[in-house]
Amino acid sequence: MSSLNPNLASKKKLIDKALDEYLPVVFPEELYRAARHLIKAGGKRLRPTVLLLGAQTVQPDIAVDAILPAAVAVELVHNFTLIHDDIMDADATRRSIETVHTKWGTSEGILAGDALYAKAFEVLSYTKTQPDAAMKCLRLLSKACLHICEGQWLDITFEHNKNVSEADYLDMVQKKTAVLYAAGLAMGGILGGASDNEVNALWEFGIALGISFQIRDDVLDLITPSEVLGKDRASDLIEGKMTLIMIHGLRHRVIIEPSRLADENGINNAVEALQRSGSINYAMEKARELLEVGKSRLSIFANSEAKKELMKLADFAVSREY
Amino acid sequence: MSSLNPNLASKKKLIDKALDEYLPVVFPEELYRAARHLIKAGGKRLRPTVLLLGAQTVQPDIAVDAILPAAVAVELVHNFTLIHDDIMDADATRRSIETVHTKWGTSEGILAGDALYAKAFEVLSYTKTQPDAAMKCLRLLSKACLHICEGQWLDITFEHNKNVSEADYLDMVQKKTAVLYAAGLAMGGILGGASDNEVNALWEFGIALGISFQIRDDVLDLITPSEVLGKDRASDLIEGKMTLIMIHGLRHRVIIEPSRLADENGINNAVEALQRSGSINYAMEKARELLEVGKSRLSIFANSEAKKELMKLADFAVSREY
Repeated sequence: MSSLNPNLASKKKLIDKALDEYLPVVFPEELYRAARHLIKAGGKRLRPTVLLLGAQTVQPDIAVDAILPAAVAVELVHNFTLIHDDIMDADATRRSIETVHTKWGTSEGILAGDALYAKAFEVLSYTKTQPDAAMKCLRLLSKACLHICEGQWLDITFEHNKNVSEADYLDMVQKKTAVLYAAGLAMGGILGGASDNEVNALWEFGIALGISFQIRDDVLDLITPSEVLGKDRASDLIEGKMTLIMIHGLRHRVIIEPSRLADENGINNAVEALQRSGSINYAMEKARELLEVGKSRLSIFANSEAKKELMKLADFAVSREY
Repeated sequence: MSSLNPNLASKKKLIDKALDEYLPVVFPEELYRAARHLIKAGGKRLRPTVLLLGAQTVQPDIAVDAILPAAVAVELVHNFTLIHDDIMDADATRRSIETVHTKWGTSEGILAGDALYAKAFEVLSYTKTQPDAAMKCLRLLSKACLHICEGQWLDITFEHNKNVSEADYLDMVQKKTAVLYAAGLAMGGILGGASDNEVNALWEFGIALGISFQIRDDVLDLITPSEVLGKDRASDLIEGKMTLIMIHGLRHRVIIEPSRLADENGINNAVEALQRSGSINYAMEKARELLEVGKSRLSIFANSEAKKELMKLADFAVSREY
């Protein structure tokens, strides 16, 4: 993150400290070690960061300490979804370490995720704000969680389903990934005292940002070596996940045989085919288009350091190499 | 429930209607069908009922409609834990029907549970009350969820562990089962405008009620035919669960060989051994003792219809045959 923007490093530090404090290792210790496992292994903390930036875009001098619990809650929800997703996708590695269920077992992984989920809502209740703003945040975050479940459900049912359309994919990714960015930004806006129109603008920027991040993730999954990714390369191809790249590829008669993805050579061939068909470029172009519309939604806000950082984050979403 | 007390039947009806309305089948429909599966199959709705009774004990003329969302939230949390517990315990039947993961698959079961979890907190946000009471309820319910995870973690680690003490069991059951009853009662109290002392009294009554219900459940699991239970009989014995009965039995040299539980005859022999050692009676005696202390905590409240129903529910907890 710090290589993107040194201004964001101080936010990440605040968030990391708060995550550590709100999630102590208490009895039964092994449950909490499992719950903290992925959090301690790193992560960019993008979702809590955009919550803080959303609040500062509306109210530049807001007391960050007061709203930090809401930011932590969003990151806890994100990490809960990672633990459960890894079980469903049978992924063994993430952030260059064993996934929770691989290290502790499936039942233990389910419980570690459930514990983070509960902790997220507990921590949310420590946000210092007007009570009606707190209730709005509760509703936003819980609805976002519901959308994430819907998105993950769709993602599973889309596997190896060649009838998935671009609209289906965008709907799935909006729910599975983008809604938590959008909820973070909207919650930040609410905590900063934004009008309904301003909250909507932050929400829509968040949707564009989240979808673009996911599309870039889909691309990086194909073109980045495993040791840089921190997990197996091309896992989407191997698991038959439907991505914008795959959907474009299928439309342009790129045939990817799962049986030929057993080694590095087979994966390289598949990725080259998707490059030749223009599918990877097509997906990136789509991400850039969405982001331009999203960024334009921020025009209603006065210029500020926080708004500038959100704009930079949008550019980072589609240019990043990790 | 109606065979226990006709006054509670109208509450159950209200709760059932609200559950149905707050959890409509929307896209993706199959996710919501899975999430509603166990709820539609029945259940006594005890946890939401005690929330309403707790509120009425404090404020007999409280508007039930205003606090019904909080009651629904508690029942949704309960059903989420059932879905995930059935995955962890590999149970195929509950409430006389297939469990969610058996019908839809493990990933789908995890997601259906996660969706109910999210829905619980969304519905909680619709409670009509003072905002600070709502935030207190949020904190109580989220902390209860965390305790449930801790209790379930302990339950798993206790399996086949002959060093588990009575105190270990009571701590596990308090977290896994009783805390949600206690949180329901305490939330009801808060919504009814109770003092801290009154909230504590309701909480402690709830802990005693919940532990007693669980102990009676452990007993019924042994002595009730499968067709009445709605699930396999003696599943605790077969899974090596540590219950008060088992702990007492072990202390009195009752040896239960898992390999001898394969048929009805083997199960009968094991249950008879636990009867001869006095282990089943001992557990029931413990439940009755706890309940007497719990009931005495309600003495600070004026007599009312709701208080009388809570007292009856306590007696039902240890006398029920289903």
